[in-house]
Amino acid sequence: MSVLYRLLRARRLVKNGHSFYVADVPKVTEEHRLARRAQIVAAARTCVIEEGFHKTTMADVIRESGLSAGAVYGYFKSKEEIVAAIAEDALSTIDELFQKILATEQAVTPLMALEAAINHVVAVAERPGGDVTRVAIQAWAEALRNPAIMATACDKYTVLRGNFEAVARRAQADGTVDPDVAPEYIAQVLLALIPGFVLQRLIIGDVTPSTYLAGARALFRS
Amino acid sequence: MSVLYRLLRARRLVKNGHSFYVADVPKVTEEHRLARRAQIVAAARTCVIEEGFHKTTMADVIRESGLSAGAVYGYFKSKEEIVAAIAEDALSTIDELFQKILATEQAVTPLMALEAAINHVVAVAERPGGDVTRVAIQAWAEALRNPAIMATACDKYTVLRGNFEAVARRAQADGTVDPDVAPEYIAQVLLALIPGFVLQRLIIGDVTPSTYLAGARALFRS
Repeated sequence: MSVLYRLLRARRLVKNGHSFYVADVPKVTEEHRLARRAQIVAAARTCVIEEGFHKTTMADVIRESGLSAGAVYGYFKSKEEIVAAIAEDALSTIDELFQKILATEQAVTPLMALEAAINHVVAVAERPGGDVTRVAIQAWAEALRNPAIMATACDKYTVLRGNFEAVARRAQADGTVDPDVAPEYIAQVLLALIPGFVLQRLIIGDVTPSTYLAGARALFRS
Repeated sequence: MSVLYRLLRARRLVKNGHSFYVADVPKVTEEHRLARRAQIVAAARTCVIEEGFHKTTMADVIRESGLSAGAVYGYFKSKEEIVAAIAEDALSTIDELFQKILATEQAVTPLMALEAAINHVVAVAERPGGDVTRVAIQAWAEALRNPAIMATACDKYTVLRGNFEAVARRAQADGTVDPDVAPEYIAQVLLALIPGFVLQRLIIGDVTPSTYLAGARALFRS
């Protein structure tokens, strides 16, 4: 009985006119699932960059992905869920980045964290498949009128700011930053420098990590 | 002849069956013109805040303003022109602010300029008639796909950044900032702190001028 149960879980029990038999079904591996998800997220990113978040529909994403509607809805129920996934993918590697910064033996400074974050943002923005910072700017606008997007944006930026707060605490412990200022206030300023860079890069267009970090080095104590 | 010419410019020369006569026409004063313009800009701000830039149409603005279509089109030919006017109005007082900062006898510091700018942004955002920073965020998103909005945004932010650059030059002359760093790079970082504040204020919601400036004082040299 337990053998049949295991077979039922792994395969499909088929009944024809005469008897039961066990048929092989395509095995949906975790790898396959992640590849499909990535394919849908990439399609949505393309649509949002080309048409804008507002004009993009689930039908556009389905067409662009080359998958069936059923397949796409199997992963994401709405545009909002896909935008959350785009943000998730774009920000997922930044945690590792901060872990690396905080693991160093040297004194940790806000400038080190800012430099790593800005270089990371540009590397992610320049990946093939479209500049994800263009999606971020649209998500900010959409957040103002869409509570689901607002909740996602608030979560993601709170996590990112928490990383800057950890840097501020560490810098205060190392003696490179005034220990009497709340680290969350310092994190507010450090976080602000990311969208401020992203906007100038896309709207004025003349800012690079090298010019921006030179400016920050002139202004910052450490 | 020159008297007639002056009458023609000021009034309307009417011809009936028998003779010419000069009729009085409603005198559109500059004051009246500015009040009408402000009425349209306020209506557009309300629409964009409530419906989003994308969904707002000229018909919505006309309805919200209570004026005729002819009256509205007499001032603005498109949504893009109205958004430019909203930006113009929101940023027009900031030049005076920077002139005041640069006129001081004291040493000018980046922190002084940042403090004044952040307090100004919050004061403007809290004016009755709707938070204009909500329009700004939508204009950033729209700029990515609308060249007219992009050109306006680029112009306005370049002017604002020029003010921060003037502060940086003055601070370098006063000896409060390293004179060897290009003032335009310093201005890139100072400008970034404005949208970075605006976004956190609207999306995370816990940032105030007082927390933000405390954070900046901990990070900045001067």
